[in-house]
Amino acid sequence: MSTNVAWHSHPVDQSIRAEQKLQAPLVIWFTGLSASGKSTIAGALEQILVSQNYHTYLLDGDNVRHGLCRDLGFSDADRKENIRRVGEVAKLAVDAGLIVLAAFISPFRSDRRCVRNILPEGQFIEVFVDAPLDICKQRDPKGLYQLAERGQIKQFTGIDSPYEIPETAEVRLDASTSSVTESVNQLLEYLFQIGALKSGYDPISLSA
Amino acid sequence: MSTNVAWHSHPVDQSIRAEQKLQAPLVIWFTGLSASGKSTIAGALEQILVSQNYHTYLLDGDNVRHGLCRDLGFSDADRKENIRRVGEVAKLAVDAGLIVLAAFISPFRSDRRCVRNILPEGQFIEVFVDAPLDICKQRDPKGLYQLAERGQIKQFTGIDSPYEIPETAEVRLDASTSSVTESVNQLLEYLFQIGALKSGYDPISLSA
Repeated sequence: MSTNVAWHSHPVDQSIRAEQKLQAPLVIWFTGLSASGKSTIAGALEQILVSQNYHTYLLDGDNVRHGLCRDLGFSDADRKENIRRVGEVAKLAVDAGLIVLAAFISPFRSDRRCVRNILPEGQFIEVFVDAPLDICKQRDPKGLYQLAERGQIKQFTGIDSPYEIPETAEVRLDASTSSVTESVNQLLEYLFQIGALKSGYDPISLSA
Repeated sequence: MSTNVAWHSHPVDQSIRAEQKLQAPLVIWFTGLSASGKSTIAGALEQILVSQNYHTYLLDGDNVRHGLCRDLGFSDADRKENIRRVGEVAKLAVDAGLIVLAAFISPFRSDRRCVRNILPEGQFIEVFVDAPLDICKQRDPKGLYQLAERGQIKQFTGIDSPYEIPETAEVRLDASTSSVTESVNQLLEYLFQIGALKSGYDPISLSA
């Protein structure tokens, strides 16, 4: 049937899906220590983007560790495979035309580089959520640092597993002195500068 | 900061993402033998849905076997893990508010059931692309059946690995007598009946 050929000759691809959503798909990859604020900032940014009618998706430990990666632990090899899979999912999600926010400790430089390398040029934005270990330990919202220091959790980043500070991050957020609002505004400003926001943006103000 | 609480109290979820896209997210899961027409029909349906401004994503071997599942082969265990991961990705994609089309041989009933079970009630539509083995062998667009019969490919579904016919498929397409156009129309009719298409549909006609 010649009709079959017609279907195949115009498959739906990233550009069609992105155009439909009036946006430039990309991955905004948040890396940083546990309790640095990655998920909070990513979630806040997502809310702002959605309120401005961007089509987003947020990937984090909550929706990955219990599903796609539930067979993986926290050894170096398993962390590597965890980030590899998340990177592949992020690739599929940007192929779907979405703006993907990914919030993972992702402590190893080589793993973050692998994710960058499988994505189309310019579609990977690395955001270093920079908060000193001491502050993260003080926050410790889930008591994980305390458990790790007692040895009740092994291979915890910052305690007995290393965190490799990004050398190539597009954005560094000072998560110890900036509020969530300030961090989100810094990211919106950056996204606007690189042309990822179509019609500018209004800096958010949570006190309003 | 009280603002952090505000962010967390209204996370973006599936219902917000779906509402933004004016659609009911779901997974349309095509199962059937190699060369039965799964990918062709799924791709054609996707084109029609996108032309009517639905937000879709197509998962198939092409975008999964070289990426997320490139560590997997075709043993029973690897096929199971392949479908498990694809199911988890489909779950994330419907969580993103998308209409997901998944085209995989997925020969084992238990694996398909697992995917159904991890998805929200009513968001998994199993479509059996039913074409007799003889016809698939005749079509054999990639010459895979020929290689399998010569023993040059092992564990090929229908030759030396079983295909378990669906017992619970929501839709059965007779892919030996129906054209791609007819199959797509049958699916559109079904999607309309279950309320997944917001404002009806026009049966497609490729000859027009």
